[in-house]
Amino acid sequence: MSNTLKGACIFGQSGGPTSVINASAYGVIRTALDSPEITRVLGAAHGIRGVLDDKLYDMGLEDEYELSLLMNTPSSELGSVRYKIADPDVDDTDYKRILEIFKKYDVRYFFYNGGNDSMDTCEKISRYMTRVNYDCRVMGVPKTIDNDLFGTDHCPGFASAAKYIATTCMEISKDANVYDKGQITIVEIMGRHAGWLAGSAGLASHFGAGPDLVYLPETAFDIDTFVADVTEIYKSKGKVLVAVSEGIHDKDGKLISEYGSDIAGEKDSFGHAQLGGLAVYLASVIKGRTGAKVRGIELSLLQRAGAHLAAKADVEEAFLAGKTAVEAAIAGETGKMVGFDCTRGKQGYTCATKLLPLKDVANFEKKVPLEWIAPGGRGVTQEFVDYVLPLIQGTVERPTEYSLPRYAKLKKILAK
Amino acid sequence: MSNTLKGACIFGQSGGPTSVINASAYGVIRTALDSPEITRVLGAAHGIRGVLDDKLYDMGLEDEYELSLLMNTPSSELGSVRYKIADPDVDDTDYKRILEIFKKYDVRYFFYNGGNDSMDTCEKISRYMTRVNYDCRVMGVPKTIDNDLFGTDHCPGFASAAKYIATTCMEISKDANVYDKGQITIVEIMGRHAGWLAGSAGLASHFGAGPDLVYLPETAFDIDTFVADVTEIYKSKGKVLVAVSEGIHDKDGKLISEYGSDIAGEKDSFGHAQLGGLAVYLASVIKGRTGAKVRGIELSLLQRAGAHLAAKADVEEAFLAGKTAVEAAIAGETGKMVGFDCTRGKQGYTCATKLLPLKDVANFEKKVPLEWIAPGGRGVTQEFVDYVLPLIQGTVERPTEYSLPRYAKLKKILAK
Repeated sequence: MSNTLKGACIFGQSGGPTSVINASAYGVIRTALDSPEITRVLGAAHGIRGVLDDKLYDMGLEDEYELSLLMNTPSSELGSVRYKIADPDVDDTDYKRILEIFKKYDVRYFFYNGGNDSMDTCEKISRYMTRVNYDCRVMGVPKTIDNDLFGTDHCPGFASAAKYIATTCMEISKDANVYDKGQITIVEIMGRHAGWLAGSAGLASHFGAGPDLVYLPETAFDIDTFVADVTEIYKSKGKVLVAVSEGIHDKDGKLISEYGSDIAGEKDSFGHAQLGGLAVYLASVIKGRTGAKVRGIELSLLQRAGAHLAAKADVEEAFLAGKTAVEAAIAGETGKMVGFDCTRGKQGYTCATKLLPLKDVANFEKKVPLEWIAPGGRGVTQEFVDYVLPLIQGTVERPTEYSLPRYAKLKKILAK
Repeated sequence: MSNTLKGACIFGQSGGPTSVINASAYGVIRTALDSPEITRVLGAAHGIRGVLDDKLYDMGLEDEYELSLLMNTPSSELGSVRYKIADPDVDDTDYKRILEIFKKYDVRYFFYNGGNDSMDTCEKISRYMTRVNYDCRVMGVPKTIDNDLFGTDHCPGFASAAKYIATTCMEISKDANVYDKGQITIVEIMGRHAGWLAGSAGLASHFGAGPDLVYLPETAFDIDTFVADVTEIYKSKGKVLVAVSEGIHDKDGKLISEYGSDIAGEKDSFGHAQLGGLAVYLASVIKGRTGAKVRGIELSLLQRAGAHLAAKADVEEAFLAGKTAVEAAIAGETGKMVGFDCTRGKQGYTCATKLLPLKDVANFEKKVPLEWIAPGGRGVTQEFVDYVLPLIQGTVERPTEYSLPRYAKLKKILAK
């Protein structure tokens, strides 16, 4: 069949890691190794950087058991990169080099796993290869804890981070309530432009042990209103738990985290406020205005690396996304990203894959619909909870060693 | 038998919470409810504060299933307190009030669950009741993530926090290594005087995915040596992961975290550095001296509330400690704390309970032996790992609701 294309593949990981991105890696690598059309499976060290630098691991030389442990290993095992590639119509230097590498290894399949920027990279490579008439199928595999990729029900990585955030907020709410003296606790959550992660703290509230207030970056944040919100609850309950997105900003779009940096910039050459972040800044504001005992907690890397709490559904869907990308490419698809179509409600949760043109996905951000944010911008609605809850279901049987996680140990042998 | 004492019991929780302290609560409450000698089981709201305020919950009115969920519920469900009770020989005001309450409810058993200070409270109450000839048996149930209680192999609560810290450090080490550009990450861990928790980050290193440097509060910390240690590893590996105890101090005993507050006190009226804590301060120092990308992460409340990662051994031992306290008191013991005698090594891990006089336990702190700290004070030895590892074994079957933790919901009906 004329559709058949035989050659090597390159797989790369890009952008911020998640706790299940390596499940997608395993989905791609395992499926590719098992496919006769794919003659060799190469893993790029640090994404597109590894292609440019000719630093490619021969995945066929790895032990199968160790490869399978990628299902259990957080972060991007092949290494990630933040590299904004030029528009090939403006500067094709990088693309010429990529083509050179593709030819060197007879690469006919390119799979790239990442978020918005990575899909943009993918789309540009796809466009360039078409233009220079190099026969190569380019597929995007979605990944982002931010859940902001356009055209898909959700993104692999989001659900496990959401589950981590909801569980941790429940635990914090138990701990922060323990003393007879009042306390105000502020938890800072990732998500610069979209509030999917911060909103997931609202799942904890939904189950009765979560934040009193949840602030998403989709609506403008006003410091005085915030202080009033907190003070009101503090007066009635004696305790307040707040969850905020790192991306909250004022009505002019200025990040609230920058307020802290401004003050620090004036007064403190060590840049404490900048490093201390938003939670510390808001805690200091609340302490100054209320005199209450306050504590700022930043969930930091923990929320995106917490593989021990990964949702089973998320791990399986991450694997499925990688597998589908390979199968679709072999079947002749190119220039597409794998996405999900899901059902919820009465018919139960189902998740099916679909393919989206990369050009429709790249550089769009999907935010939380305003009607899913509670009035006053201080929480999420039942619709938000109903959307997220099916995604976080199930726990994963994790291989351990002395009750600690047993991660994949890859040999990472460079391809010759 | 003359040994038999019939009457009500009061149980209270005190000091910083842990993820398994409620398993001890269930051990006490369940055993007491099942014992014919104990006529009524009262839970003190916020420890000794609840006794003084006559705020006692009738635990016999709770649903058995909800009570059993205490095994799964982090933090101190009855509420905790930090209240330093006077020496009864100096000021017996509080003790007269306690005696009044004991007489009101015919309390003949008092069980108090906490750390050093709580054992001190326990010992004073025991001493006072003996002096005034009020027949009452007073027993301490150990609890502290700090693991610094004297005379016992280890304390319930420590192992689950240690497991949380080791697991989280493994996850952070995976995430912090992901980019091709260098990064220095500093993780701040609880434990003001004893380095058991910070040292537990060394378990992650032992399994190949942990901090390069671990600093305990048992040895003096020098900023310049620290910068040199970090810089050396950064130059060779390009990445450094550091774990520090919140209690690290210089050779004069001054806390390093106070260095940050000093600078902030001079320059920043918002007190950012003080709130931002040690990790943020050390990150700012390293950034200033090396120019590297740095990140400070404070494990904060998460490490002591992370019940979802609780060690099975710890949960079971916490329950056992509570149960043993009740059984020993009924058998005639008083003025004692339950402790553990353990074996390790060839014969395997075993844990047996014992009783220690409260006066021997109260106000002593058990620190990490200096010979268990690696040369240069930058890690822990194999002996440390061999000590901690058996304690963190096993995972707990946790009841969940929609894949989120299902905690105990107590009615907390005040006793009349």
